[in-house]
Amino acid sequence: MPQIDAERFLKDLNELRQIGRYKTGVHRPTYSPEDMESRRWLMERMAEIGLEPSIDGIGNVYGRHRGPGPHLLAGSHIESQNQAGWLDGALGVMAALALARAGLPVDVAAFADEEGHFEGGFLGSKSIIGALPEEEIDRSRSRNDGTPLREALAAAGLAGKPRMQLEPGRHKGFFEMHIEQGTQLERAGLRAGVVTGIVAIWQWRITIEGMQDHAGGTTMAERRDAGLTAVRLLAMIDQEMPKACGERSTWTTGRIAVEPGAPSIIPGRADILFQFRDIEVATLDRMEACLRACVQESNRRERCTATLANVSKSLPAPCDTAMMAALDAAAERNAPGLWQRMPSGAGHDAQYIARVMPVSMLFTPSIGGISHHWAEDTKEEDLALCCQILADAAEQFLKG
Amino acid sequence: MPQIDAERFLKDLNELRQIGRYKTGVHRPTYSPEDMESRRWLMERMAEIGLEPSIDGIGNVYGRHRGPGPHLLAGSHIESQNQAGWLDGALGVMAALALARAGLPVDVAAFADEEGHFEGGFLGSKSIIGALPEEEIDRSRSRNDGTPLREALAAAGLAGKPRMQLEPGRHKGFFEMHIEQGTQLERAGLRAGVVTGIVAIWQWRITIEGMQDHAGGTTMAERRDAGLTAVRLLAMIDQEMPKACGERSTWTTGRIAVEPGAPSIIPGRADILFQFRDIEVATLDRMEACLRACVQESNRRERCTATLANVSKSLPAPCDTAMMAALDAAAERNAPGLWQRMPSGAGHDAQYIARVMPVSMLFTPSIGGISHHWAEDTKEEDLALCCQILADAAEQFLKG
Repeated sequence: MPQIDAERFLKDLNELRQIGRYKTGVHRPTYSPEDMESRRWLMERMAEIGLEPSIDGIGNVYGRHRGPGPHLLAGSHIESQNQAGWLDGALGVMAALALARAGLPVDVAAFADEEGHFEGGFLGSKSIIGALPEEEIDRSRSRNDGTPLREALAAAGLAGKPRMQLEPGRHKGFFEMHIEQGTQLERAGLRAGVVTGIVAIWQWRITIEGMQDHAGGTTMAERRDAGLTAVRLLAMIDQEMPKACGERSTWTTGRIAVEPGAPSIIPGRADILFQFRDIEVATLDRMEACLRACVQESNRRERCTATLANVSKSLPAPCDTAMMAALDAAAERNAPGLWQRMPSGAGHDAQYIARVMPVSMLFTPSIGGISHHWAEDTKEEDLALCCQILADAAEQFLKG
Repeated sequence: MPQIDAERFLKDLNELRQIGRYKTGVHRPTYSPEDMESRRWLMERMAEIGLEPSIDGIGNVYGRHRGPGPHLLAGSHIESQNQAGWLDGALGVMAALALARAGLPVDVAAFADEEGHFEGGFLGSKSIIGALPEEEIDRSRSRNDGTPLREALAAAGLAGKPRMQLEPGRHKGFFEMHIEQGTQLERAGLRAGVVTGIVAIWQWRITIEGMQDHAGGTTMAERRDAGLTAVRLLAMIDQEMPKACGERSTWTTGRIAVEPGAPSIIPGRADILFQFRDIEVATLDRMEACLRACVQESNRRERCTATLANVSKSLPAPCDTAMMAALDAAAERNAPGLWQRMPSGAGHDAQYIARVMPVSMLFTPSIGGISHHWAEDTKEEDLALCCQILADAAEQFLKG
């Protein structure tokens, strides 16, 4: 079994944490000076290990293994959300480095803008599989300040550089280690999570049109209260969705807003952002049918019209069976009884890489489930343990 | 019967409409140059009729009848909401002038800031009945720009002027004519509404505390979704309130806001503004009990805590039986079968004057129910008709 240099792995993580440091976390928005500094730092680390480092026209940093195959791909991203945690994507990239350092035939990748500082998001993993057309780069702007992506690439010194593509057939699979963005492992007292797949997110906007009126002068019988229709519709969805969903499905109303929102005015309009997530398309289809039936029933009953619009539908990315089996075995060997299988509710680079090769993910526990916040953290012994599990699984999967 | 000079009454309304004109409406915020110009204009009209005009330290304009009693008080307010209609309070003041002009022993009053441009609102009608302490004036600020009320009074030239009080025993009752702020008269094809009273408004804030979490990483079982608790509570109120309310009660959720309001974040907090209105305190008490029971039941069932806070409770102001009977008779004589009794769902100066003398109100129909908007309007023939009904009722009530 390969032996991870846990001390060096934690030292790498802590060195990278100094670049764009913010409290106990980091602030490294994509293509910022701090982000570019971290990419140069990463290429130096790759070169030290003997990998062949490069950076491409979208900012992907790639460390190519110089030896013979079969190869694995491992990594994640190193830019951060604004004022966010030190682990997140950085953890997956440093773990990949640790695997290469331990002698495994691993190409290490840090994909640009998984965090979506620019419209579209996942720029690097989309680009490297050929799913990021030039027109999307032309159109995209910073969500922070509106800077066109082209301008940001030029300012970062990346304009005109070619964009690399994954070499077909080179990799047997992709491993991504990540901190759990939740508390399932912590609550269950577990130290590792073998990810079964990355859920798809289907996002919706529901708009309800009523009639804005004076709350004193308008009788209950006369009203067309868009807020009340929203409440009844959302209560119906709350009742019906459990009949359609799967065991691990989630659904969330992230936004409810009524206009104008004043105490004595009957709302004339309501705006709802709704989404559901699952790993099975059949389940997602059932949930969509349930949502559509609720909206239809609302429009049959109510005096305000609800309009349902799909905002986006991502594809679920199931993890590879053989890779999961290798992770299961490695987890059981290193942490007997202290791991579980679980889906990833959040999106990751692996979901795009899954379109071109088998993928798998390993979750470390998150202290208090804090994510996308500078206080994000995992115990050092859990980080080291999971990195060793990843290395063992990688070796076993290569042999299998 | 006194004969209203309808032409002159409409001419007055149209002249006043030129001061602070905005599209077909007016913009006369309290103590603005336009508002003060309209107050001076009103004093000139009072003097022409033979009334003794004065303005006091809160901006109330008063035209005192010089003849013997018994006297009536009539009027309303002449400042407007921002960019609002030409009628609203101005209608009641011009109708009062028309009654005085027709020879009725009427004192005419224009009470300052019924519209509440300054915190507290109803400054003039509260002041004239002795219900506006100096400390409230010290504290109050403009809701438009934060200017202290004291500064605004000084800028308007009112600082240091004494504030007038109603002379106890002088008035047999108060008549206020107003445009309906709704469509009940228009929909029923009616031309006048005899107001049975001004409803009380009881306002509440419901705050729900949950736990903000990532919509992907948090299972349904782990969630404490403040938005969902809000939906279930409001759906319960929607079910239960009809069992507690009166025939003419209204209840309104004017604001529903969830924080942070992003598509992939489980709301950690919900903020609800809720109010109900009725003319009977017993009904209001039942509705409060219903609301409290719903919140209590929510807290028994849910994982998020709902906190109910009372924001304000106004008193209902029932209209005087004899005055209503006089208005009924005058309406039936001038518009047989084309009038009805109805409560006022909105607040008016009459609700404060009701604390010191009998009051009554007469509503004119509103075209499309538009209120607090420059497009507010009533047909001229309905304005003239209602002014004649008011005059007839005033005379009959004085005799009775």
